[in-house]
Order: sequence, then C-alpha cells, then structure tokens
Amino acid sequence: MRLSQYFLPTLKETPSEAQIASHRLMLRAGMVRQASAGIYSWLPLGLRVMKKIEQIVREEQNATGAQEVLMPTIQSADLWRQSARYDGYGKEMLRITDRHDREMLYGPTNEEQITEIFSGSVRSYKDLPLNLYHIQWKFRDEVRPRFGVMRGREFLMKDAYSFDIDAEQGRKAYNKMFVAYLRTYARLGLKAIPMQADTGPIGGDLSHEFIILADTGESEVFCHQDFLNRDVLAEEFDEESDLQPVVDSWTSIYAATDEQHDPARFESEVPADKRVSARGIEVGHIFFFGDKYSKPLGASVSTPEGGDVAVQMGSYGIGVSRLVGGIIEASHDDKGIIWPDSVAPFKVGLINLRAGDVACEAACEEIYAKLEKAGVETLYDDRDDRAGAKFARMDLIGLPWQLIVGPRGLKNGVVELKSRRTEERDEISIDEALSRLSAGQA
Amino acid sequence: MRLSQYFLPTLKETPSEAQIASHRLMLRAGMVRQASAGIYSWLPLGLRVMKKIEQIVREEQNATGAQEVLMPTIQSADLWRQSARYDGYGKEMLRITDRHDREMLYGPTNEEQITEIFSGSVRSYKDLPLNLYHIQWKFRDEVRPRFGVMRGREFLMKDAYSFDIDAEQGRKAYNKMFVAYLRTYARLGLKAIPMQADTGPIGGDLSHEFIILADTGESEVFCHQDFLNRDVLAEEFDEESDLQPVVDSWTSIYAATDEQHDPARFESEVPADKRVSARGIEVGHIFFFGDKYSKPLGASVSTPEGGDVAVQMGSYGIGVSRLVGGIIEASHDDKGIIWPDSVAPFKVGLINLRAGDVACEAACEEIYAKLEKAGVETLYDDRDDRAGAKFARMDLIGLPWQLIVGPRGLKNGVVELKSRRTEERDEISIDEALSRLSAGQA
Repeated sequence: MRLSQYFLPTLKETPSEAQIASHRLMLRAGMVRQASAGIYSWLPLGLRVMKKIEQIVREEQNATGAQEVLMPTIQSADLWRQSARYDGYGKEMLRITDRHDREMLYGPTNEEQITEIFSGSVRSYKDLPLNLYHIQWKFRDEVRPRFGVMRGREFLMKDAYSFDIDAEQGRKAYNKMFVAYLRTYARLGLKAIPMQADTGPIGGDLSHEFIILADTGESEVFCHQDFLNRDVLAEEFDEESDLQPVVDSWTSIYAATDEQHDPARFESEVPADKRVSARGIEVGHIFFFGDKYSKPLGASVSTPEGGDVAVQMGSYGIGVSRLVGGIIEASHDDKGIIWPDSVAPFKVGLINLRAGDVACEAACEEIYAKLEKAGVETLYDDRDDRAGAKFARMDLIGLPWQLIVGPRGLKNGVVELKSRRTEERDEISIDEALSRLSAGQA
Repeated sequence: MRLSQYFLPTLKETPSEAQIASHRLMLRAGMVRQASAGIYSWLPLGLRVMKKIEQIVREEQNATGAQEVLMPTIQSADLWRQSARYDGYGKEMLRITDRHDREMLYGPTNEEQITEIFSGSVRSYKDLPLNLYHIQWKFRDEVRPRFGVMRGREFLMKDAYSFDIDAEQGRKAYNKMFVAYLRTYARLGLKAIPMQADTGPIGGDLSHEFIILADTGESEVFCHQDFLNRDVLAEEFDEESDLQPVVDSWTSIYAATDEQHDPARFESEVPADKRVSARGIEVGHIFFFGDKYSKPLGASVSTPEGGDVAVQMGSYGIGVSRLVGGIIEASHDDKGIIWPDSVAPFKVGLINLRAGDVACEAACEEIYAKLEKAGVETLYDDRDDRAGAKFARMDLIGLPWQLIVGPRGLKNGVVELKSRRTEERDEISIDEALSRLSAGQA
C-alpha cells in the first residue's frame, strides 16, 4: 500500500481525553475514531490489526473442533426471561423496543441464544460433543466508558459454547478451550496467565480469567515468575486426552487477581525472588456452568441408556477488539506502538527519504514491487514529507521493520533496515534486505 | 469436514412459514435458524456461503482502490439530525435510548457517519479521490419481515462511500463502482442488470439498481435479451479512464423495473424476439448525491486554487446476507440448492454409500485425505444412513460435485462423480476423480 493513497489520519497531538497508552496511540496512529461515548469506528490501519487478531482466534478455535456460527446482535427479551437473567442484568443491558412494542435487547453475551439453537436442533447424545462459537459485536452500556476500546460499549467478542453429555466430558471441553486460549495469546505475542475467577452474572462454579501483564493494567495481580518463562507453543499435547495434567500444570502455580489474592499463601508457595506483583489486563474469561441454561431452556439429549438429560455447558469469551488495545498496552514505547509480527498491520514500512529524487524513487519502486510480489505486506511512504516526520510516523504506527532508502546510502549501494523493537539498524544491500524480509526473518 | 462431526441440522419437512424457495431451502438445509421475526442466526453451512460472498465483494471493492473500514452498528441520533434525516426516516429506523437517556439508533445506512469521519480527518484536495467502505450489520425495522434473509430486519451490507473534488471526478468514482458491481455479481454466478432507479431516502439524482432475474423475484422487470448474453469478466477496461463508455454500453440498452417501465419505448427499442419480461430481485443500489451530506456535515476540502469546497459524494450498497437468498432464488431445482462454484460452502460432497464396509471406508478415508491435502473443500458423509437419505441431503445442500463410493463400483475399481447442476454422472477411477476435482474442473 502506498501511503499517499492510504487513509491514515495520524494525529500530531495527543488527544486530551485519552488517559492510557493504547487509547492515545490508537487515536494518534489513525486506527480508530470515536463515534459516540465508548463506540468507535475502525479506520483501515486499526481494522487490519483487528482482523489479524480475529483470524488467529478463529484458527485456534477451529483447531479444537469448534464450529463457527453467527448469531444476530439483536435478541428477544423473552429468551432472557426464560433463564431469569432479563431483569437481573441491570442497566448494562441495552434494552430496545421495536415498532410493534416488542421488547428486544442488544446482546451482551449469548448463552440463551445458543442454547435455544441447540435445543431446536440436537436431540441425541450421538451429536455430542459440540462446541459452537461466533465472533460478533456485543453491547454493554457501561456507565462510564473509557480507555478507548479497552472499556468500550460496542465491542467485538469471540464467544464459544460447549455442549456435553456429562460433567466429565464438559470438563474436557473446558480444558480444550483453556489450552486453546493459552495458544491464542501466545500467537498474539502475549504472555497470558490463567487465574481462578469469580463467575459473576454468567454463573457456574468453575472459571478462569486470562490476564496479561501491563503497567497500565486495570487490576493488581500476583503470580509466580515461572509463568513468564513458559512457552505453550513449544509444548506438545495428546489431543485425545482430557488435558487435565496440562491444565493442572498451569493452575497449580500461584496466580491471583487482587480480589482473590492470599498474601500468606503467596509468600509460602512462591520463593521471594520469584514473586511477581504487577498490573494486569483481563483478555479472556472461561466458564463451566453445567445445566444452568440447558435446564430452563430445555436443551436435553437422549442418552445411550434411553433417558433424557440436560446437557452440560460452558462458555468461553475473548475480547477481540479489546485485545487490540491490550496488545498495545503490553508492547509500546514513548515513540509509539511496537506490533508483534503476527498482528502487525504491515510487516515493513518502506521509507523514501527523498521523494522526488530519481534514484531514490526508482529504488523504492523496485523494492516495493518485489516485496509485494513476494507477499510481504508493505506500507510504502512515498509522500513528500520531511525525513523526521516520516520516521516519527513509522515509529508511531509500529510496523516491525523499517526499510529506509536515502540518496547517500544508495550511492554506496546500501539501504538501512531497522527493527522497530530492538532499534537495531543494518546497512545492507537492497538484495540482502529483500531476501531477509521475504524469508520471514529480517 | 466429516458430516458426523458437522453441525448441519437439516430438516425433512418444509417449514410452513417459508413462502419462497430460498427461505424454504435455507431452513431445510440447516443454513440459518430464525431468532426473532426477521432476525436470523447463521449456522455453519450458511455462514460459509455468506463469508465467500463477502470475500468476493471485498476483493472487487479493493480492486477499485476503495479502503475497508468498520463503523459501529449504534449511531447517535444527533448525527442524523445534522442531515435532517432523523425525523423523516420513519418507523424503519430502530431507535434506542441508552442508560443516560441519550437518543441512539441502530444504523440502517451510514452516509452521516462516514461523512463525519471524513470531515474530521481530511482537509485537502490532495487526499482525494477517496472511497471508504465497510461490511457491517444494519437494521431496518420492516413492518412485516418475510422471505427469510431476503427481507429481514438485521442484515449484512457492504456500503461504500466516495469523496471527490468535483462532479466529474464523482462521476468517475460512480462509474468505477458500477463496473465493480457488474464484476462482483458475475463472479457470484449471477446475471445482474443495471436499471435506472429512484433515489428514495438516500437522495441525489443519479442512481442505479442491480437486478437479477428469478421467477420468485419481488418485482416485474423488462429488458433486452442482450444483457443475458454479456460477460463482463471477459471485457477489458482502461482502469485509468473514466469508464463512461463502458457504463454507457450497459445503460443505453432498454432495462426497467415496473415502476419505471415505458411499454412504448420497450416496443420501439427492443425487437420482439429480444424482449425479456421477467421477475427480478434487487441485489445492489448505487447513488450519486453530490453535496447532500457533505454540506450540512461540513465535509469540505481546500482546492488547488486556495478556496474550500464541499466534496461530491456517492454511496454504493450490496446486500451481502440478502445475496445468499438471491443466489438460491436464481439457482435451485425441486431437489434443493445448486451453488455456483465461487460461493459453494464445499466443492465436493463425498458419499460413503455403505458406512461400516471395510473397503468403502478405506477408499473414502484415502480420497478424503487426498482432497483435503489438495485444498479441495470436501464434506465427507461418513454417517450411517440409507443411501437415499444421503443423496437427498447432498442434493438439498447443493454442493457442485458429488463423489459417490459404493461396494459394487469399488469391485470394478470405479467411483461415481456427479455434477449437481447438470446431473451428469461419470464412472471413473479414484485417481481420475481426484485429478479432475483437484484441477479445478471436474
């Protein structure tokens, strides 16, 4: 993409309403624009990142055998009355009356709706296990929306729902999602720590939050240093097993949010030099709640023995739009965003230091054409700006690599390849730069 | 995908509420399930089709240089007051009051919102031309929703918005979209005919509807036979030109909906043996409305001469979820759906005629593994059902190819490859079947 043709309305000044880094940087980098309080439009750069996150989430869901569906945003109030959650949900639920005075609502979550789909379609234990997920916009009418997309009102969420014949199978479904979540966050470049959690309005008695560490996190968390040294993507699992040993290995080490923190246990279980006390951001929450929804909504199946039984359910949420902010909170510096490779909107920012210079333009055009041909996503700054402005903008938007082409270097047959994360700079030939960028490592 | 693990709740009986073919077939094929009046959940098979349509729409938008954004579903009423459309829009607009008693609405279209984004970000003619589009759920509170996804209340739409410095450039943007729409429908396997149209609540004085022919169409249309013999994908354009000659060649031949039909002109302009009178379905609508929104919302840019001018705008809509139904209306028989290749949820239905038979299972497993490896999307019916039920289900869901593996054929070293569209059947070797299906033509 040529910057001269790209809709990237970056801001020089920091908007005064933005209190945390991700909010500031998303506005400054032209990723989002506020539409109303807690409601955002996603501009091209922001949308590219969100779609990459969404795709990684999707791939890891699919890998577990979960199947993608898409439920609507608007639900009927009657459905929520069946589970007795309609009146209790409070003012965070956006309630709507349609032209025929029917009570509707903008879904904040989908336990009732998916259970209704299940109960209308599945009759036999032979169709289990089943896990259905969707990636859809939700609305929670926060009393005081803030922190940009981190606590917005309209937000994109992946929510999955598992259906099983008994609690043992239900636990296995829960464990599968537990591991899929760890893999998802690792692929997003995040260190996520599972912590036992309250179940809140979703219900049930088994629940974990996944928390990433960031200085600007919303809550204080306490955990063992070992969490931060573990790489789930390097671990192998027996996919046919119930994964209980894997889950145990992640939950037997101390980790707690301040709500659940037990200082005495922390000190007795974790050696002093391994105690991590930091700020954390919740980026996912999983629940196992048995028959809480299947019973009132009549989601039961025939059993091998001939009877009927209400299915055992769990639900599993990841805040996709929230993760865009979460990743920035975890990965930025005072110049701007530092995207992990997997979600970077482009891999390379190609900077022509002197627009209008014949040699620079020819070299840039050649590099740009070759990178595009090799499938390397490139944002080519072909604009006629000062070098300083170009560097500042590229640092702000945080692409992993900057390839800088200037008249002096070209005379010596070199260009500069800079890593945004390490700030290392290499003066190398164009061919070497192309081959390093195309090879997947620069 | 193995059918035994796929969430495909097909129905044997035709739901009584479904009055048209696409509604009946989408319910029977387990593609959607009604959530509330005019509001549907998309099940895995339906979602696969919708995503393929969405991706073709996206590719053709991107090819014009349009850039994807994503605006929220919930908009503020104040924004619509600025364009004076809030009060006039009537009961089709779903109006919402949030917890702080602010008036909001579920967007039925996005002219105001995109204009606000533009006016907040773009200042100079140098940033034009610009075309921004999104693919997002909309809501129109139809008084009597019916015909399934063809006239639902919550629906997925691609809407693009062009911004230009003057009417001439605006016309060029309009023409680009005109051609992109023709290409989009052709890639979806549809013959779409552009017809001059009323501009309705969007406004402006230049507008075309794109209509596909189907016996169950909502309105009567009249056109020249030549439209049906033309293949836009085989035509070449000068992308740098204003495309006016191309648009003229599509609009100078007679085509009109019944609202705009002029029988005298039809008879004088079209020879008797070339007159087509048929039912049509609207699958897209494009508008050029100049400064109708840019003026009240202050979307102006500096000009090369030094002044300021309100930008010239157009908007361009394609009903993505509606197209799922539209394609079925245009392509089905009494046994079920017949998907065009480009949007088929899977390319091949692999049928094991005798589940449990060692030779049949081994052959099917081998074929399935090889097709998956070759990237051929395959739905493998590994269930233990009667042959008749398997055939009926495959015909119902309409995959382009059926590969039928039975004990008798296997003894002779052959399987049967059947085209859903032509019903031609070939008895061929497994190797030949694999090579035909993998080669992109069967």
